[in-house]
Amino acid sequence: MLRYLTAGESHGPVLTAIVEGLPAGLKVTPEFLNVQTQRRMGGYGRGARMKTIETDEVNITSGVRWGETLGSPVTVSVENKDWKNTSKLLSIHEADRDLSTRVVKPRPGHADLVGALKYGRDDVRDILERASARETAVRVAACTLGRRLLEEFGIQVFSYVRQMGKTIATKIPEDFSELIEKAEASPVRCPDPEATKGMMDEVDACLKAGDTLGGIYTVVVTGCPPGLGSHVQWDRKLDARIAGAILSMQAQKGVEFGMGFGMASRPGSQVHDEFFYEKKKGYYRGTNNAGGLEGGMTTGAPIVVSAVMKPISTLRKPLRSINMDTKEEFKAEVIRSDPSAVPAAGVIAEAVIAFEVANALMEKFGGDSLAETRRSYNAYLEDLKKR
Amino acid sequence: MLRYLTAGESHGPVLTAIVEGLPAGLKVTPEFLNVQTQRRMGGYGRGARMKTIETDEVNITSGVRWGETLGSPVTVSVENKDWKNTSKLLSIHEADRDLSTRVVKPRPGHADLVGALKYGRDDVRDILERASARETAVRVAACTLGRRLLEEFGIQVFSYVRQMGKTIATKIPEDFSELIEKAEASPVRCPDPEATKGMMDEVDACLKAGDTLGGIYTVVVTGCPPGLGSHVQWDRKLDARIAGAILSMQAQKGVEFGMGFGMASRPGSQVHDEFFYEKKKGYYRGTNNAGGLEGGMTTGAPIVVSAVMKPISTLRKPLRSINMDTKEEFKAEVIRSDPSAVPAAGVIAEAVIAFEVANALMEKFGGDSLAETRRSYNAYLEDLKKR
Amino acid sequence: MLRYLTAGESHGPVLTAIVEGLPAGLKVTPEFLNVQTQRRMGGYGRGARMKTIETDEVNITSGVRWGETLGSPVTVSVENKDWKNTSKLLSIHEADRDLSTRVVKPRPGHADLVGALKYGRDDVRDILERASARETAVRVAACTLGRRLLEEFGIQVFSYVRQMGKTIATKIPEDFSELIEKAEASPVRCPDPEATKGMMDEVDACLKAGDTLGGIYTVVVTGCPPGLGSHVQWDRKLDARIAGAILSMQAQKGVEFGMGFGMASRPGSQVHDEFFYEKKKGYYRGTNNAGGLEGGMTTGAPIVVSAVMKPISTLRKPLRSINMDTKEEFKAEVIRSDPSAVPAAGVIAEAVIAFEVANALMEKFGGDSLAETRRSYNAYLEDLKKR
Amino acid sequence: MLRYLTAGESHGPVLTAIVEGLPAGLKVTPEFLNVQTQRRMGGYGRGARMKTIETDEVNITSGVRWGETLGSPVTVSVENKDWKNTSKLLSIHEADRDLSTRVVKPRPGHADLVGALKYGRDDVRDILERASARETAVRVAACTLGRRLLEEFGIQVFSYVRQMGKTIATKIPEDFSELIEKAEASPVRCPDPEATKGMMDEVDACLKAGDTLGGIYTVVVTGCPPGLGSHVQWDRKLDARIAGAILSMQAQKGVEFGMGFGMASRPGSQVHDEFFYEKKKGYYRGTNNAGGLEGGMTTGAPIVVSAVMKPISTLRKPLRSINMDTKEEFKAEVIRSDPSAVPAAGVIAEAVIAFEVANALMEKFGGDSLAETRRSYNAYLEDLKKR
Repeated sequence: MLRYLTAGESHGPVLTAIVEGLPAGLKVTPEFLNVQTQRRMGGYGRGARMKTIETDEVNITSGVRWGETLGSPVTVSVENKDWKNTSKLLSIHEADRDLSTRVVKPRPGHADLVGALKYGRDDVRDILERASARETAVRVAACTLGRRLLEEFGIQVFSYVRQMGKTIATKIPEDFSELIEKAEASPVRCPDPEATKGMMDEVDACLKAGDTLGGIYTVVVTGCPPGLGSHVQWDRKLDARIAGAILSMQAQKGVEFGMGFGMASRPGSQVHDEFFYEKKKGYYRGTNNAGGLEGGMTTGAPIVVSAVMKPISTLRKPLRSINMDTKEEFKAEVIRSDPSAVPAAGVIAEAVIAFEVANALMEKFGGDSLAETRRSYNAYLEDLKKR
Repeated sequence: MLRYLTAGESHGPVLTAIVEGLPAGLKVTPEFLNVQTQRRMGGYGRGARMKTIETDEVNITSGVRWGETLGSPVTVSVENKDWKNTSKLLSIHEADRDLSTRVVKPRPGHADLVGALKYGRDDVRDILERASARETAVRVAACTLGRRLLEEFGIQVFSYVRQMGKTIATKIPEDFSELIEKAEASPVRCPDPEATKGMMDEVDACLKAGDTLGGIYTVVVTGCPPGLGSHVQWDRKLDARIAGAILSMQAQKGVEFGMGFGMASRPGSQVHDEFFYEKKKGYYRGTNNAGGLEGGMTTGAPIVVSAVMKPISTLRKPLRSINMDTKEEFKAEVIRSDPSAVPAAGVIAEAVIAFEVANALMEKFGGDSLAETRRSYNAYLEDLKKR
Repeated sequence: MLRYLTAGESHGPVLTAIVEGLPAGLKVTPEFLNVQTQRRMGGYGRGARMKTIETDEVNITSGVRWGETLGSPVTVSVENKDWKNTSKLLSIHEADRDLSTRVVKPRPGHADLVGALKYGRDDVRDILERASARETAVRVAACTLGRRLLEEFGIQVFSYVRQMGKTIATKIPEDFSELIEKAEASPVRCPDPEATKGMMDEVDACLKAGDTLGGIYTVVVTGCPPGLGSHVQWDRKLDARIAGAILSMQAQKGVEFGMGFGMASRPGSQVHDEFFYEKKKGYYRGTNNAGGLEGGMTTGAPIVVSAVMKPISTLRKPLRSINMDTKEEFKAEVIRSDPSAVPAAGVIAEAVIAFEVANALMEKFGGDSLAETRRSYNAYLEDLKKR
Repeated sequence: MLRYLTAGESHGPVLTAIVEGLPAGLKVTPEFLNVQTQRRMGGYGRGARMKTIETDEVNITSGVRWGETLGSPVTVSVENKDWKNTSKLLSIHEADRDLSTRVVKPRPGHADLVGALKYGRDDVRDILERASARETAVRVAACTLGRRLLEEFGIQVFSYVRQMGKTIATKIPEDFSELIEKAEASPVRCPDPEATKGMMDEVDACLKAGDTLGGIYTVVVTGCPPGLGSHVQWDRKLDARIAGAILSMQAQKGVEFGMGFGMASRPGSQVHDEFFYEKKKGYYRGTNNAGGLEGGMTTGAPIVVSAVMKPISTLRKPLRSINMDTKEEFKAEVIRSDPSAVPAAGVIAEAVIAFEVANALMEKFGGDSLAETRRSYNAYLEDLKKR
C-alpha cells in the first residue's frame, strides 16, 4: 500500500512530504520530479508568479540512494526561496508574534473564514497558509514518485485543457501522441490551436477586468492492464479513489469519467462499450465511453477523467466580505492576481491520479523491489493471454 | 471515526454490513432503516422489480439494545427472500458445484469481464454477484445509521432528480420544504411536474425500445455547522470524501459541487460567494455557488452535490460481447430489464453522503455517547456566536 | 491488505465478522473454521461451558461459492443457540426494555465499570455484552480464513501451554510434530505430561476454592519465508502487529518474542542468533532466540511468541465492588465460573497471529487469486536461492 | 485521529517526521522537543556516542506559528551534523555510487540479512541505514508532540529502569515524585541507588568484555481519565495499541501491563483490582495490578507498562555470519559499541506511549482547537462526578 502525507505552510520555510510503500530499486532523480513541479507552474494566465518558475526545486532527503529507491520512505521537500522575507511572519517562535500583521479580512472563495471558525483562530493567516494551493508544489513531487513507478510498466499520464471560460476545444486529436504534442506546445495546454487562441484572449480579458477564469481539463492514463482497483468493497473502487484525489485538490469542483455527465442524455445502447476479441490484442472494447473503468476496475482502455476547476478566488475585482474584528463589511482589495491556473490544475491532477493508479498497481501485484513487482506484473499479463 | 464494510452476493442468502464508531444512546429502529431501503427501491422505471418492494427488510443483530445504540458495532443485514431458489447456485459447498450453470458471456457495461480476468474466474457469476447494485440494499441500511445521527443535530439530507434522458427539470422550488414535498410526490423524484411527465415518457419509450436511461440527481444536506471536514490534509477534505463515496456507488460516472461544471464558463466575480454578517445569523454567504464547502470544510450553507448515473447496463436491446470459452462474438440477450434507476440512485447517494458527513461530525466533536457528542457540538455553536 | 471487523453481543442473536481482501480461489469450508472454533472451546478448566462445545457452529454467508473464495468479502457468523432465552434481554426493540433486569454491580477485572462511565450507560450489561470474550468465537472464525491461506503456503500455526498457576512445563519437545501431538493430547494443551498433571491439579484446586488461574502459552508459526513484515515504518513491523493482535484479545496482559524477557539477564553474545549458510537451506540461524523476527521481518525461522493471560475475572470467591446506583460496597457473588481458559487463549492467539502473518504475506506478494499470489510467492523463493 | 510517519536514513542528511491531527492552539517549542530527544541520548552505557548529545537538535518547519500549533501537519526534523562525511555514501545521485564501499557482511541480531533478501538489495547498507535505531531521534520528536498535548490535561509520562543484566531493582519508591526524581538522577535511570550501582558495574564489565546488556524498564502514565481506548473493536483497545507501539521500537522483545507475566502464577483473587468509591475521588481501585487498563480502556489509575530490550546487537565480541558475496563464514568484527541503551529505550517508550494515549484522547474528545478539546474533556469530567 502506498500512502503519503504533505505538510507545510505557503510562506513557511519548506513544504515537505513523506511517501511510503514504494518498492526498492526504482530509479528516481530530483530532475524527474522537477520536470513535473515545473510543468505545474506553467500555463498562460499565471504571469504574476511566472518568475519563480525556474527557482522551485525538489529535494529528496530520504529513501533514495545512488539513484534508486531503497524501499524506505521517501522525503521530498521544496524550500521557500523567499523565506528570509517571511521568516518572522511564519516564525515558529512566540517571540516573533506581531499582532500588527494580523489578517482579519477573510477572502470569499477561500477557506479563510470557515477555517478560522473551525480551528478557533483570530488571524486568518493561520488558515490560509495551509489552505493555499501552494501545497501542490510538494504534492506533485510526492505523487510523481507514483508516476515514476507507472513509467516502468509503460503506463503514461497526460492532460489537456478542454475548456476555459466560454471557449471550448473542439478539435481534440484522436491520436494521443499528437494530442500530447499539441497540448504541451499550447500556452494553455489545449491541443486545439484555435481554442488556444480563444482561451488566451479570455485570459487577457480577465487580466484587464481584474477577474478570473475557470475551466475543464482532461487527464488520460494509457497502458493500464485490466484489473487495477476492485469491485468488492466500496472504498477500493479505483474511480472512487481517483475522484477523491481530484476533489482533494484546491479549487476543483467536479469530476467525471469518460462520457461523464453526457451519459444522462443518451440511451444505454449508445453508452455501453461493446466487447470484442482478437487473438493478438485479447479482449477490447469498441468504444471507451466508460473512461477506462468498469466496476471500479481498469478495463485496459485508457482512463479518461475530466474535472472542473473554479476560477481563482483571489481577484482584483473587489468582493464583499466581513472584517472579523469589527464585523463591518468591506470590499476585498487585491493588488494583483493570476487570472487562471487551469492548465496547471491538469498537471497536478496528472500527478495525483498517477499516485492512485500506482497504489492500485502495488495492491494487485505486491512486491518489495521493482524486480519483484515486475515479475508478478508480467506473469499476470502472460496469464491474461491464456484467458 | 466511523467506518463500515459491506458484504454479500446479490443472490446469496443475505447481505451484511458492520458499522463501527457510532456513539451510544442513539435511538435506532429497523423501521427507520427500512424507510430508506424502501425509498431506494422506488422510482418510475423499475417495474420489473417493483413487486419486491414490500418484502426487503433490514435486520439489526448487534450494537442496538432496547432501541438505542450501545457504542458497539452495529450489524445490519437484508435477507434474500428468494434464497430457496438460488441456494444451489450460490451455495458455499463444493458439492453443489454445477458447471452447467456457468456464465461465460460477459455483459457490456458491467464488471463481468474485467472482474473475471482480475480474479482469475471462469464463471462470470463469481464477479457479477458482488458487483451488482443489489449491494446498495445493505449499504443504504448501514449509511442510514449515519443519517440517524445527523438527524439528532438537525442535519437533513434529501435528493431530487434534475435530468433523465433529454428531459431537464427547470422549475426547481427554492424553498426546500416545497422541493422535498414535490420530489417525494413525483414518480421520478423530480420536483418539476412538467419535467416529471417528460421523464416518465422517456422511461416508457425506453421500456418499449428495450433501452435504458441515465440521469442527473442532486443531493442537499441542510443544517451542517461550519467546519466539518478539514483543509489540512488532502485525504481529510469533506468534498473529496463525498466525491469518493458517490463514485463508489455502482454506475455513477461523475459528481459536482454547487455550480460545478458550470463554473468553467463564468468569471470568478460571478462564482465566489460573498460574505455577510448579521448578529442573529452570524456569518453567511449571499449565494451558495460553492455548494456548501470551502477548503474541504462545510460553510454552514447547504451542501449541494449533483451526480450523473449512466443508463442501466442491462438492456433488452442486444449489445455485442464475446463468449469467454469460445471467443466467439454473440449478442447479449436480456429478457427484461428496468429502464432506469436514477431516482433510486439519488436516494442511495443521500445515504452515503449522510455517512460521510456523520463521520466528519464525529471527527470534530468526538464523543462516546450521544450526550457527549451533543455537549461538544452545542458548546461549539455557542462559541461561534462570540466570533 | 486484509482487514476484518467483528460485531455482536455475547447474548445477542448472532456474532458476525466481515473479512476483506482474501484472494479468490482459496478453498474454504465451514468445517475448517469449525475445527478452530471448537478447539477454542476446549481445555480442562472450562467445565461449566463444556456442554455447548458441540453446538457452536460457523456459518459462511458471503464471499465463498462452491467451496472457494470469490475475492469478495467473507461473512462468518456464529448464532447464539440460546437466543430464545435472551431475546428480550438483548432485544433491539424499545418495547422490550425491562429496567428490573438492570445490572448496576460492576465486576472487578472486567470492562464493566469503566465502559459504563465512558459510554454513559447506567446498565452495565450494555458494556459487558460486547466486552465478553465470547466475541472470540467469531474472531477465531474470521482469522482462521487467514490461517487457511497460510496453509496453502505450507505455513503452520500451533500453540501450547507453558505455565498455569505455579506449574511450569519443563519438558518441551524440540521436535515440533511431537510437541504438537503432545499438546493436542493434553487436557490443558501442555506437552509436558507431568506439568499437565500439575496444571490439572491447580485447576481442580481453583474450582474447589472458587478461584481462577492464569497462565502462559506459546504460539509457533513455522514455514514463513524470510521477509514478511517490514522495517521501514513503525506500523509495518510484523512483531508490532502481532503484539497488538494478542493484546487486543480479552484478558491478555503481556507478550514476548523468542527468549523475550529472558533477554534482560543475558549478554548479547548469548542472545543474538548467528548466521550460517548451506547451499541447500540457504541462509539460516544457529539458534532462534529472536523468535523468528529481525527488524520487524520474518527471518525464515519459526515465529515464537508467548503471552500471559490473567486469571478469569469472574470468580466465585467474592470481590469487593460498588453498586453504581447506591454507591454502596457489595461483594460480587458469582454462582459458577470456569477456573481457567489458558489453553483456549493459546488457540485464539493462533488464529489472530495467523491473520497478521497472512496479512503480511498478502502485502508482500499481492494477488487477486490464489494462483496469482502463489506465482509471486514461488518466484520469490526461487529468487532467494540465487542470493 | 492523530497519525505520523517517520522517514530518513541513519547517515542521511536529515530525519523527518510529519504529525497529523493535533488541535490548533497547543503551545510547542523546539526546546520542549529537544528535552526529550536529549533525554533519549543519555544513560550510562552509551559512552561512544555521548559526545553528540549536545548537538542533536529538532527543527519544526510546519504546523507551528508564533509558538502555537495551527491544526495543520507538523514537520519535525533532525539534521545529521556529520552529513558532510557521509554525503557520498548516502547520496541520492547515481554518480556517487561507489561499489568499493558495499557492505556484504550482515550483522547478527540486525535487520541486515533479512532486509537485503526481502528488498532484493546486494548492499546491506541499503537496509541498515533505515533499520537503525537512529530513527527514534525523530520518532521521539514526533511523539513528544502527543506528550505536549497530554501535559495540557495533566497527564504525565515517565519511565525507570527495573533491570539490567542480572541486576534487578528492588527499592522502587511508591511515591511517583520520589520515583521520578531518583530515576532522573540515576545514570542508568534506575530509582534504586544500590541497583544503579550494580547496573553500572554490569555495564563496565560488558564494556570490558566487548559484550552488551539488555534490560527491562517501566513506563508510567499518570492522570488519565477513565475511558480512553475502547472495548468495542479489537483494533481500538488502548493496550493493544501501546503494545504495538513499543514492539515497533527497534530491539524491544516483550511488553507487559501491570503485574504482567506475574499474573500467571497468582490466583484471580489476588490479581483483580477491587472497586471502591469515595464522594471526592469517585470510583477507584484498591490496587493497580491491571496496570491502568480494563477492557482496553484506561481506568483512571496510572497506566503501567514494562518492556524488555534485548542487548544491543552490535558487539565487539565477534559473532559468526556469512559474507553474502562469497557465502563464506566470517566473524563480525566491531571496533567499538555501546554496551547498553536500556535507559534510553525507556525514554523512547515514554514518547511512543504518550502518542498513543494522546491519540485515544483525541478520539474520545475530538476538537480542532485545544480550547475545544478541553471543553469536551472538562464536561466529561464534570459528568463523571454525577455518576
